[in-house]
Amino acid sequence: MIISVIPTAQQAQDIDFGGKVAVVIDVLRATSVITTALENGAREVVPVKTIEEAQSLYAQLEPTMTLRGGERHALKIEGFDLSNSPLEYKKKTVDGKTLILTTTNGTNAINNVKGADEVVLACFRNAEAVVRHLIETSQCGVSTNIIIVCAGTEGRFSLDDGLCAGMIIELLKQKTEVETDDFGLLLNRFYSESKSNLFGVLSECYHLKRLFMLGFYDDIKFCLETHCTETVPILKDGKIVKL
Amino acid sequence: MIISVIPTAQQAQDIDFGGKVAVVIDVLRATSVITTALENGAREVVPVKTIEEAQSLYAQLEPTMTLRGGERHALKIEGFDLSNSPLEYKKKTVDGKTLILTTTNGTNAINNVKGADEVVLACFRNAEAVVRHLIETSQCGVSTNIIIVCAGTEGRFSLDDGLCAGMIIELLKQKTEVETDDFGLLLNRFYSESKSNLFGVLSECYHLKRLFMLGFYDDIKFCLETHCTETVPILKDGKIVKL
Repeated sequence: MIISVIPTAQQAQDIDFGGKVAVVIDVLRATSVITTALENGAREVVPVKTIEEAQSLYAQLEPTMTLRGGERHALKIEGFDLSNSPLEYKKKTVDGKTLILTTTNGTNAINNVKGADEVVLACFRNAEAVVRHLIETSQCGVSTNIIIVCAGTEGRFSLDDGLCAGMIIELLKQKTEVETDDFGLLLNRFYSESKSNLFGVLSECYHLKRLFMLGFYDDIKFCLETHCTETVPILKDGKIVKL
Repeated sequence: MIISVIPTAQQAQDIDFGGKVAVVIDVLRATSVITTALENGAREVVPVKTIEEAQSLYAQLEPTMTLRGGERHALKIEGFDLSNSPLEYKKKTVDGKTLILTTTNGTNAINNVKGADEVVLACFRNAEAVVRHLIETSQCGVSTNIIIVCAGTEGRFSLDDGLCAGMIIELLKQKTEVETDDFGLLLNRFYSESKSNLFGVLSECYHLKRLFMLGFYDDIKFCLETHCTETVPILKDGKIVKL
């Protein structure tokens, strides 16, 4: 398996994903939100870039079966149903619904990798399930050339995404032969040395500190929990569904 | 002091360097070559992007006082005087001369940060001197906002440059209060855990492996030596000179 890691959503724009599997990570909080929504029964998640796109799509769908979620500057968008807190995406709220989601970093990253043979969404909560899926598909003739895209924050690399990438590389290495680029090497080593204390090593991470200051302590705690779900979100015809 | 780190020369293109100090690192081998050339008496180094630019500039200068150096695909350029091996830039060869240099990554990185208030070139050999200079200038009213640009290899992040960035951050932290972005945080931590064995931790680095396979063992060894010189190359009117 050949793995390379891209530090930000923006850089993914310049990459040719043809013949490759893309794994998108936005720990705080888009991929954690999407994983949780699908785990709790959401029918599908449609990632869109702008608030206008979200509203326009919402107008075309059945309102009782559709929710608009996401954030700008980490906060709920005016007129939307849900914010970007995974804790809001409970079964009673999302079950059977279509979710239209727009966030600053994560949904951009997903839209930037659409040329890939397969797009998988990962976070700490589903990392083990994602790894199992990548191993299985690599044995079924799907590409063994993986590009992990860390969504980042405001165009900059974010340590939480990097740590999750390092974890996925470590878990893959336990099951198969893995060759990584230098950035993957760095993140894997960082994860290996930090895994007993994820919260501690991320305490200086810019994005985590910002969410902490905004009062999202419970969100952070939830997003840093590992191996909680078997849900693997994948992109299919522009929509994210549960595998 | 506020420090951010850019993983590749290419990404530096999108950054506004106004009001900031740029520190460019291309350990293997451009900034090691430039530091060595200036240490050994070269009058100035002119970084150019293309071979054609190098030849055109050479034609306008006094040939007995000018040298053309650099590489393509890590090898000497046909018709040039010197390759990209720092070991060739001895006093008897470069003393008093103007050096026109074109390399795949390093000279591009230098050209991409020209908008900075000051451009400083760093490598393992002069890291301590560079840090001393940054501390001094920050006390003289020059910006305390530093952007370290890792040149990278073929558009990708290179671990040797990252490790040197981590070392510079560590040395700065010993002398002043430092705030870094997430990437700087990661590299600083990586350096702290690797400093007793630079050669070992870089053994899987793509660029180092490639140069090793091409037989450049002595170059690698030379470029990974630390704190060997007081030479700090800075950019002045498009030319690199010794501070």
